[in-house]
Amino acid sequence: MTKLLIKGGEVVTGASAFHADVLIEDGVVAALGQDLGHPDAAVIDATGKLVLPGCIDMHTHLEAPHNELDDPSEGAITCDGFRDGTIAAAVGGTTTIVDFATQSPGTTFHETLQQWRQRLVKSPPAVDVGFHMIVTDMGHPDAEQDLADLCDEGVTSYKLFLAYKESPLWVDDSTLFRVAQVAAKSGALVMAHAENGGAIEVLQQQALQRGDKAPIWHSYTRPVRTESEAVARVATLCDIAGAPAYIMHVSCSEAAEVVAQERSRGMRLWAETCTHYLAFTEDVLLKEWQEAVKYVVTPPIRESGHADALWSALRDGTLSVVSTDHCPYLTRWKNAATDFYTIPNGVPGVENRLEVMYELGVRQGRLTVTQLVERLCAAPARLYGMFPSKGTITIGSRGDIVIFDPARSKVISAATEMSKCDYSIYEGMRVEGSVESVLFAGQLIVQDGKYVAENEKGAYLPRARFVDPI
Amino acid sequence: MTKLLIKGGEVVTGASAFHADVLIEDGVVAALGQDLGHPDAAVIDATGKLVLPGCIDMHTHLEAPHNELDDPSEGAITCDGFRDGTIAAAVGGTTTIVDFATQSPGTTFHETLQQWRQRLVKSPPAVDVGFHMIVTDMGHPDAEQDLADLCDEGVTSYKLFLAYKESPLWVDDSTLFRVAQVAAKSGALVMAHAENGGAIEVLQQQALQRGDKAPIWHSYTRPVRTESEAVARVATLCDIAGAPAYIMHVSCSEAAEVVAQERSRGMRLWAETCTHYLAFTEDVLLKEWQEAVKYVVTPPIRESGHADALWSALRDGTLSVVSTDHCPYLTRWKNAATDFYTIPNGVPGVENRLEVMYELGVRQGRLTVTQLVERLCAAPARLYGMFPSKGTITIGSRGDIVIFDPARSKVISAATEMSKCDYSIYEGMRVEGSVESVLFAGQLIVQDGKYVAENEKGAYLPRARFVDPI
Amino acid sequence: MTKLLIKGGEVVTGASAFHADVLIEDGVVAALGQDLGHPDAAVIDATGKLVLPGCIDMHTHLEAPHNELDDPSEGAITCDGFRDGTIAAAVGGTTTIVDFATQSPGTTFHETLQQWRQRLVKSPPAVDVGFHMIVTDMGHPDAEQDLADLCDEGVTSYKLFLAYKESPLWVDDSTLFRVAQVAAKSGALVMAHAENGGAIEVLQQQALQRGDKAPIWHSYTRPVRTESEAVARVATLCDIAGAPAYIMHVSCSEAAEVVAQERSRGMRLWAETCTHYLAFTEDVLLKEWQEAVKYVVTPPIRESGHADALWSALRDGTLSVVSTDHCPYLTRWKNAATDFYTIPNGVPGVENRLEVMYELGVRQGRLTVTQLVERLCAAPARLYGMFPSKGTITIGSRGDIVIFDPARSKVISAATEMSKCDYSIYEGMRVEGSVESVLFAGQLIVQDGKYVAENEKGAYLPRARFVDPI
Amino acid sequence: MTKLLIKGGEVVTGASAFHADVLIEDGVVAALGQDLGHPDAAVIDATGKLVLPGCIDMHTHLEAPHNELDDPSEGAITCDGFRDGTIAAAVGGTTTIVDFATQSPGTTFHETLQQWRQRLVKSPPAVDVGFHMIVTDMGHPDAEQDLADLCDEGVTSYKLFLAYKESPLWVDDSTLFRVAQVAAKSGALVMAHAENGGAIEVLQQQALQRGDKAPIWHSYTRPVRTESEAVARVATLCDIAGAPAYIMHVSCSEAAEVVAQERSRGMRLWAETCTHYLAFTEDVLLKEWQEAVKYVVTPPIRESGHADALWSALRDGTLSVVSTDHCPYLTRWKNAATDFYTIPNGVPGVENRLEVMYELGVRQGRLTVTQLVERLCAAPARLYGMFPSKGTITIGSRGDIVIFDPARSKVISAATEMSKCDYSIYEGMRVEGSVESVLFAGQLIVQDGKYVAENEKGAYLPRARFVDPI
Repeated sequence: MTKLLIKGGEVVTGASAFHADVLIEDGVVAALGQDLGHPDAAVIDATGKLVLPGCIDMHTHLEAPHNELDDPSEGAITCDGFRDGTIAAAVGGTTTIVDFATQSPGTTFHETLQQWRQRLVKSPPAVDVGFHMIVTDMGHPDAEQDLADLCDEGVTSYKLFLAYKESPLWVDDSTLFRVAQVAAKSGALVMAHAENGGAIEVLQQQALQRGDKAPIWHSYTRPVRTESEAVARVATLCDIAGAPAYIMHVSCSEAAEVVAQERSRGMRLWAETCTHYLAFTEDVLLKEWQEAVKYVVTPPIRESGHADALWSALRDGTLSVVSTDHCPYLTRWKNAATDFYTIPNGVPGVENRLEVMYELGVRQGRLTVTQLVERLCAAPARLYGMFPSKGTITIGSRGDIVIFDPARSKVISAATEMSKCDYSIYEGMRVEGSVESVLFAGQLIVQDGKYVAENEKGAYLPRARFVDPI
Repeated sequence: MTKLLIKGGEVVTGASAFHADVLIEDGVVAALGQDLGHPDAAVIDATGKLVLPGCIDMHTHLEAPHNELDDPSEGAITCDGFRDGTIAAAVGGTTTIVDFATQSPGTTFHETLQQWRQRLVKSPPAVDVGFHMIVTDMGHPDAEQDLADLCDEGVTSYKLFLAYKESPLWVDDSTLFRVAQVAAKSGALVMAHAENGGAIEVLQQQALQRGDKAPIWHSYTRPVRTESEAVARVATLCDIAGAPAYIMHVSCSEAAEVVAQERSRGMRLWAETCTHYLAFTEDVLLKEWQEAVKYVVTPPIRESGHADALWSALRDGTLSVVSTDHCPYLTRWKNAATDFYTIPNGVPGVENRLEVMYELGVRQGRLTVTQLVERLCAAPARLYGMFPSKGTITIGSRGDIVIFDPARSKVISAATEMSKCDYSIYEGMRVEGSVESVLFAGQLIVQDGKYVAENEKGAYLPRARFVDPI
Repeated sequence: MTKLLIKGGEVVTGASAFHADVLIEDGVVAALGQDLGHPDAAVIDATGKLVLPGCIDMHTHLEAPHNELDDPSEGAITCDGFRDGTIAAAVGGTTTIVDFATQSPGTTFHETLQQWRQRLVKSPPAVDVGFHMIVTDMGHPDAEQDLADLCDEGVTSYKLFLAYKESPLWVDDSTLFRVAQVAAKSGALVMAHAENGGAIEVLQQQALQRGDKAPIWHSYTRPVRTESEAVARVATLCDIAGAPAYIMHVSCSEAAEVVAQERSRGMRLWAETCTHYLAFTEDVLLKEWQEAVKYVVTPPIRESGHADALWSALRDGTLSVVSTDHCPYLTRWKNAATDFYTIPNGVPGVENRLEVMYELGVRQGRLTVTQLVERLCAAPARLYGMFPSKGTITIGSRGDIVIFDPARSKVISAATEMSKCDYSIYEGMRVEGSVESVLFAGQLIVQDGKYVAENEKGAYLPRARFVDPI
Repeated sequence: MTKLLIKGGEVVTGASAFHADVLIEDGVVAALGQDLGHPDAAVIDATGKLVLPGCIDMHTHLEAPHNELDDPSEGAITCDGFRDGTIAAAVGGTTTIVDFATQSPGTTFHETLQQWRQRLVKSPPAVDVGFHMIVTDMGHPDAEQDLADLCDEGVTSYKLFLAYKESPLWVDDSTLFRVAQVAAKSGALVMAHAENGGAIEVLQQQALQRGDKAPIWHSYTRPVRTESEAVARVATLCDIAGAPAYIMHVSCSEAAEVVAQERSRGMRLWAETCTHYLAFTEDVLLKEWQEAVKYVVTPPIRESGHADALWSALRDGTLSVVSTDHCPYLTRWKNAATDFYTIPNGVPGVENRLEVMYELGVRQGRLTVTQLVERLCAAPARLYGMFPSKGTITIGSRGDIVIFDPARSKVISAATEMSKCDYSIYEGMRVEGSVESVLFAGQLIVQDGKYVAENEKGAYLPRARFVDPI
């Protein structure tokens, strides 16, 4: 029986912070206490450090072809596989990933899940990995039952794209509504990339025809209200169907306002933003081509002012989660594009979230550390069927724990990262406070900021059905 | 030079009511005054009567195949042609109709308009007839220019169907957005049948599969928020594109609330309801089959409570217009259906609006007669490029005038109507106050409630571009 | 029988604009028509001119001591009496004033009205003058009945001050509510100066104690939400009581938004703004003392951005009326103050409204001339019981008419004004378009921009009870 | 060193529920763990029981004269003193009370607090007792500093009455605003009894004059929007001043909607409801006099429908807390009244909250037990400066713990209660699940549902300054 005792740290959960020792037995938190002693236990000294639940990133794109569905041999594919990406996650303090299994049109959901679970076998992850199902097609027989059955296999969230009208990913309102009906019955959460793909496609084609190709046009062709419109639509259709809904990567104040408004009307609606919307402004798209392309992500990073609104929405609970939407493309793929439309969308970030959020959020006075843990650990665990096994530190929780040293400063650089991505959008940013050690299921996998596991210990993570959080 | 003097009546416009004589010369109002004398003029005694502008009905479906596009030889077609329907309109006090020219996919807008103008030649109308263009397809070359050019031909409103997902009428958000962009530049108004066709289609197919076929399921499969969602979407996308928008046949309080809210945010948004939503409740669909089918119209007539909200919205200006959506199918077509889904949608009403609205609105204390004229005459004239030539009685206005006798009671019955429809949803309703005479362009075409014109005097009515009304 | 024929002009009402001659007999519009002839009539050639209804200014302070109630021998009094002020109004195109009768605490409403009617006898007005009753005290026996009875005497609007906590003008919510209850029964409109006097008084005293005395502190001590809070309170309490409400001098976007929101919820709520909020920004208060004091008015002129919001609210109908709040103090009174708190509040403007609004509104493309007439003539007439006798040009309307020449330019200067005020906030402003002639009750009182009446023809104007306008 | 070990129970916090033993040393939670052993510790077997944080009731009126300020010799006084009332609280599972110190006009806040602390000495409480300061008068010198200094003495919340216009408790908006300014600087929370006292006073006096005296008129004279108006006013004025605000006893859907709306706009606003608004409808006031008077509380218990809205608002976080507003008057005081206006307002409830909320909330499926703990323990602790010392069970928390037995049923009856009140509004209500034992600071004070402490162990509880909760 493995025993590990973390002594002297300040334990922080989404609810409170308190000084306590933490005893982990057989991978599970077995005791919390003042001056806990245990003769058999290995001891980690956390004096002066924060002891946090392992962070959860429920929005990443590992081993993902561009637009999820293209043939990888002919197009860009995200450069982090499950193994690389989860090692990067781990050194950044994230011990649980929920990535996407993407249904190819014509494939069943069950088959799709098996394919993705097989990928995990081939590229064994350093931390736990669950899957959301990206639904692209409800045309096969018994599609409803097939989709509902995923909950028995631990996939309890269905993602839909309202953006990318030109792609097979896009679904129409009928499909959205059918999926919401299934979710209402099966106990799943509907997740949406909420942008009005129809209007955006028109603006994009017009820009291209006019010869407006620069990266900034990625932003100009996606007006903020194409996002807020889609948020309202998702909220309404899910509400009619009786399903809970989750809005991905809210990027602007207008969308956050719709979330707040619909929640105040009693909708079962939650939402996230991503680190990069809090850290940058649209100006990055006005840099020269080779720099600007690095920041092309969808929805686009917005004008000055929106980030403040998002921080405010994080504080007041309008936004529940900060995820990374980690979607790393090598710069050669980014640079191969000849106009804004063909630049592979996505930015890396799975390795940086905790440290960047601690710097911009906690150190700059925008969030308390308790609030940060709520947004990075507890809230995603609750919304995605993992709480209180994950997302908090309490008796019976998994021993997924981060020792964070507020005194350990660091300069972010792609050169020193575990991610295979050859650039970082945070390149050169100095953060005061960084990850010292990470325990995964009670085992030390990151020490002194370095990945030290001898082999990857993660596995497919089945999740429980959705329950309305408090 | 024809001269006609209407003496002794109370002139009512959307702005005020006052006692005055009205002199019409050459089809145009030439003078208003107290005790006007004119030796050459024929005199109509309107003592004790109301002298109203001829009403405008900008929402009718004459000679329309089911769903506008089906082959009429195989399916239902509305039973009133342009001649019959406009005679019915005239005896009901309506001197201007704006009907629809429906683009068949693959046809240009210009061709479509020519076809419809040709129909007018074949079935010469009793009153003026303009056209809105129903846009179904923007796929042809120079579609934008083709659509914009319609304004030069007097078609300054473009209608789009967000309902009827299964039909070629339905348009996606790309088409909606492109049309709104054209309207913003050309000076047209975007009109929308705002219901979420995608969600409704799902609910309909599920009901049919369950064997729920009764007429009431026409209502149960169209939840009120499928309407309000679509209203918000139209408002938002048109606002992004810079176009004014008009919501057709608002049927429920939720949709009216969205209209009010978006207007209070500064949107250029207007809306109508129809007579039947003010007169009935959903219970009519629970009658036995042969009765219930008569009331099947889209959106459906709603539960008790909605009509009150609509009256309130009419009073406070949230709703600008009451139209009829006259869409008469013979009962044999209605009864040929075997489930709610195949019942031809639509109710007659072009002949009844003024009298029913006077009874339910003015006599029952819900509207003043000035408000009624605003909603039936002035507002549609302003929004559809006809004011002040039509929609009011002022110097220079067309001599389209209704002499309405508040003391003349009447019982509505299909048997005595000019419409070819073999039933009336208002059958047996007693109204106190009815149309005595109607002048069209200064000529008496209805006298003592009877159509007396020797030949039809109406023609195609080109309309001016949209200007924001006060 | 006096007859006057205005020929060749373009008649503009709040509903439409049309070319017509206007025949006035015995002070009343007797006929409108094309090429009207009348052998006995005097003829005014209005070719190329606009023929407008005489404007209505329902917010002026003539012969008003500072804060309405101070002893005039010891304090400032507005420098225009009823005669001077109405002559100034007339040359500016205004033929009806509704001023205030201010109840001194302890006096009955009936007595108060008699006092004010007596003032009119002593200082005979050039145009019609009605009164709103400023209610300060409901403490006398039968106060409710006394107040209700005013309607029989033609006073059908009750004004309340929620601002000026330190003054006897201020009323508490009990008094507001009681007055609203009376209005609901008697058929009157509740008018409110909506600012939270309690919070403002605190901020003012704190500023004075800190030594912050400059005019700009008049603005800094009145945050915009002290205004919007009070608007919401008036709307709610009047709604509970069943009374219609009217918000005076809306100065900021926040207040306009509350008006829009409450109206969209079905409240019987209307509001005005004033010319100066549309013409200036807060910067004027940062000028040197002797200039800045000229612009001290309550609520204060707001920061840049608010005026745009108010123009927008005028266009969409959130704001129904533009008044002047004419409240002229000689500069010696303004300059006698030693801090922002004791500067007599108020600006002149009764002589400038039509010309300034035509310049800033119509010529600069923010309003149509029809909209302008709606806001300056028709809407105040409707809301204050004068329509259609006043506020429009139709058969039976009073012959109060302005001949406005769009080609007649003018530079505004106090030196050439009829108002006794020794400064103008519009000094030096060039306007293209100005008042040529004014008819009052069918008699020419202004000709070629000059007051030409031999004696003052105005009188006390009793008004009808409130009726909800369309 | 006292040690106590609670074994085998399910620990429930506002964040999660988990099986763990709890070790308490020296009154503080020292360890949580699976199968914790400790040879020296006394053991409590909690197998099959819930182990909850001691509940917090931050809204009680112990030893309170009617309207807080009346001379007790002449009027009603609440029948539970600090000793009795806290014993009642304890047996009901509440281990912390925050009651009110009420400033008599003319007294300083410091003096007031000393008086109330003296009362605690005379009537020693069974559990901890903190105080909110009821501010009635800011007229004394240095009132701001006096009020701010309370925070150093552990009083970090200021309560204001916007209701009771006729009483010295009522404060005007100036006082509200000044107090909010102090709170913004001192780190206190502004608490408001939000009803428009001005409008209510008018309605009450009118009812009395009409002879409408029955208890139901207590409700009829307090329309729901007199509550929602005041909520909006408190939120706005506190927001201008920069202070956080807390709305007491929200009773109706309208008020909850305003709370939701203002929160969605970013206001720092929180609110509570009380047990009785969730348990009853207005009908109780229609019972015969002697029954009806028992339910007279302010705001009144509302019509059917409001309770559902409040449950919903509790679930979605619009309402953060359920308190009791325990304000027990003996029936002889209730019955001594001769009209609704003189009935002492208030209902008992401090002894019943946890059990009634468990029954109506958890057992009837409206809340999870975790949500219940959030609303009764964690949220009040956070908002009132006691977290995580109180309100949760974590390392370092005070050993205030309730052993709740879900299998222990009970019928509520005044006859068996510790409260001195001679009636219960829940009389005869059967609850499945009740309090078995209560630990206060690690000592057993309630055992088998009976109070067993040998002497009262509570004391004055100073609280920390306000910090925005997550």
